[in-house]
Amino acid sequence: MHKGRLEAFSDGVLAIILTIMVLEIKVPHGDTFAALAPQLPRFLSYVLSFVYVGIYWNNHHHMLSSTNRVNGRILWANLFLLFWLSLTPFASGWMGENHFAPNTMALYGFILLMAGLAYWILKNAIVAQDGTNSVLAYAVGRDLKGKSSPVLYGLGIVASFWNTWVAGGIYVFIALMWLVPDSRIERTLEEQKPK
Amino acid sequence: MHKGRLEAFSDGVLAIILTIMVLEIKVPHGDTFAALAPQLPRFLSYVLSFVYVGIYWNNHHHMLSSTNRVNGRILWANLFLLFWLSLTPFASGWMGENHFAPNTMALYGFILLMAGLAYWILKNAIVAQDGTNSVLAYAVGRDLKGKSSPVLYGLGIVASFWNTWVAGGIYVFIALMWLVPDSRIERTLEEQKPK
Amino acid sequence: MHKGRLEAFSDGVLAIILTIMVLEIKVPHGDTFAALAPQLPRFLSYVLSFVYVGIYWNNHHHMLSSTNRVNGRILWANLFLLFWLSLTPFASGWMGENHFAPNTMALYGFILLMAGLAYWILKNAIVAQDGTNSVLAYAVGRDLKGKSSPVLYGLGIVASFWNTWVAGGIYVFIALMWLVPDSRIERTLEEQKPK
Amino acid sequence: MHKGRLEAFSDGVLAIILTIMVLEIKVPHGDTFAALAPQLPRFLSYVLSFVYVGIYWNNHHHMLSSTNRVNGRILWANLFLLFWLSLTPFASGWMGENHFAPNTMALYGFILLMAGLAYWILKNAIVAQDGTNSVLAYAVGRDLKGKSSPVLYGLGIVASFWNTWVAGGIYVFIALMWLVPDSRIERTLEEQKPK
Repeated sequence: MHKGRLEAFSDGVLAIILTIMVLEIKVPHGDTFAALAPQLPRFLSYVLSFVYVGIYWNNHHHMLSSTNRVNGRILWANLFLLFWLSLTPFASGWMGENHFAPNTMALYGFILLMAGLAYWILKNAIVAQDGTNSVLAYAVGRDLKGKSSPVLYGLGIVASFWNTWVAGGIYVFIALMWLVPDSRIERTLEEQKPK
Repeated sequence: MHKGRLEAFSDGVLAIILTIMVLEIKVPHGDTFAALAPQLPRFLSYVLSFVYVGIYWNNHHHMLSSTNRVNGRILWANLFLLFWLSLTPFASGWMGENHFAPNTMALYGFILLMAGLAYWILKNAIVAQDGTNSVLAYAVGRDLKGKSSPVLYGLGIVASFWNTWVAGGIYVFIALMWLVPDSRIERTLEEQKPK
Repeated sequence: MHKGRLEAFSDGVLAIILTIMVLEIKVPHGDTFAALAPQLPRFLSYVLSFVYVGIYWNNHHHMLSSTNRVNGRILWANLFLLFWLSLTPFASGWMGENHFAPNTMALYGFILLMAGLAYWILKNAIVAQDGTNSVLAYAVGRDLKGKSSPVLYGLGIVASFWNTWVAGGIYVFIALMWLVPDSRIERTLEEQKPK
Repeated sequence: MHKGRLEAFSDGVLAIILTIMVLEIKVPHGDTFAALAPQLPRFLSYVLSFVYVGIYWNNHHHMLSSTNRVNGRILWANLFLLFWLSLTPFASGWMGENHFAPNTMALYGFILLMAGLAYWILKNAIVAQDGTNSVLAYAVGRDLKGKSSPVLYGLGIVASFWNTWVAGGIYVFIALMWLVPDSRIERTLEEQKPK
């Protein structure tokens, strides 16, 4: 099967997740800037979640560009990833609504952890199809970022109950770590394509 | 007519259905896990519906990959399928809101039954266009899953008024039965393509 | 410019219009079928609007398949069409909410009239680009359906204030008239393509 | 990397932004035209925002059509643009809800200013990749519209606190200025392609 529809469908779901998250920022009834202030936590929560979904789209884009065909296992691994990402608006909304309270930050971290896990499963499904000599297998190599993320999410979840600023710092740090697109794949693809 | 836009449009509608269903899970006002608990039935309802829409996307993907052109009859059969699937968020939300009460489970089963019927009409429209010697006609063969599903949905609807656990079990069973992508089509396509 | 992105963007907007209309049917709090009953007008309104948006998607699909390139005038004519169609969920929701009251049916007819007008402008923009010898110009020929629709919408709007059943009948009749995809274009395309 | 998915994803996000803005126009409970009247400011706000998002889609379409490949910097510049545009429904809703009050118009102008800035960053990222001899670099030339827009948005923001009619006039003027698609790019592309 060609990967075209998988990409199109994932793009659609990610685009909608990104856009409905903005609906969590409620239009205030007053027309003063003071009336806007209570929306600030929701706005900050939206910014963080926008960056996370943007990172997933970006890396999904890279990962899929290294393969051509998709099998049933990849289709379902991809849906499993979209499932966890689709819960981001809920977790993000709850966190913003409650001003980054401990429980809400722990749930947010848990959703991110599960999305990270699903991404890892998807990566393995692609490598399993293309073989360990494939572009992707070669490119991800030791995969330090992939291996450290679940540990960091776990730390973030634990830290939520202790100090929410530390938890928030960890989530921001992971985002920054991933913000750099997966240049390993980009470089490897570059080298392999004669163009 | 080429099938590209039919696929793109269906992907769009299915992606949106998948994503707006998550809006049925309301962000609670409290920040305790206890405040989350009342959302559990809505969450379970979301998981089941996510899997169903995922299955439809998956099999739609397979079915369309076996044909190249679409005629007016196929376009409308496809819209008829999208219509019933578009009612899934409503039925799913009603079921979750009311903790899987009998009537809500019966309606949920009815929507699934109609979507299954529409899928069957779409399949026939494609076979009618491509001829009984086509890849699809050959692949679906006796079509046990397709023939047993309406009977099972019917049983689920009746069971809703008797024991909602049985009805839920039937709906989960049908989902699991379909989770395996239509390997008949995949295999037949594989055999026919020299690649 | 290639028409690919115009089609993709229009598909996206139409898919979302179709799907957010279902949000107008509110999930009732009770779990009885009696609790569902008040949603019936909203459901009927949704069915009619779904069919109309489906017709526009279908004919848009046909019309664009007869051309290859798009210029700035076509881009904006297309956005003008999408603007009026994007008001369908509002008009449809108002009509359903108020049980097909006269004013609401008149507004609904007005939105449809403007969408029809926009479609006609788009058709002319394409013919202007491709020349009067183009496939589309030849195919639409005398264009009876296109010319009678505005008159019928006008009748529907007037009838709304007199007898809403008559107005509803007119809107349903126009939908049925268009349900048949534009076989003129399909046939002409068929004849011109050697395949 | 090919630009296909960047375009598809942007189309998805822009299509959703366009369509969820219509949700800010609330369906009134009464069935009289008088009940519709309070929605008029929201409707006007929707029209202006629809035109702005339409302009961005149009020019995005043009700008991307002048390049073939995208790098990581372009991907993130594009996401930065989509971020600011995704806030349009919020700013537009707040402005409509409060009948174009000064603060709301200033925020609206600020969001447009940031979107304009992001568009400029994206343009530079593409020129940086393709070189100053590229089609885009040549086409945008002195870029009068691009350079005057931020000044005009700034004037609009300041004017909001003095006279909201002037601010509104400035926003409408900028929209009209951009409504003409970027014919410079179109013309340059035309000249370069032998077709």
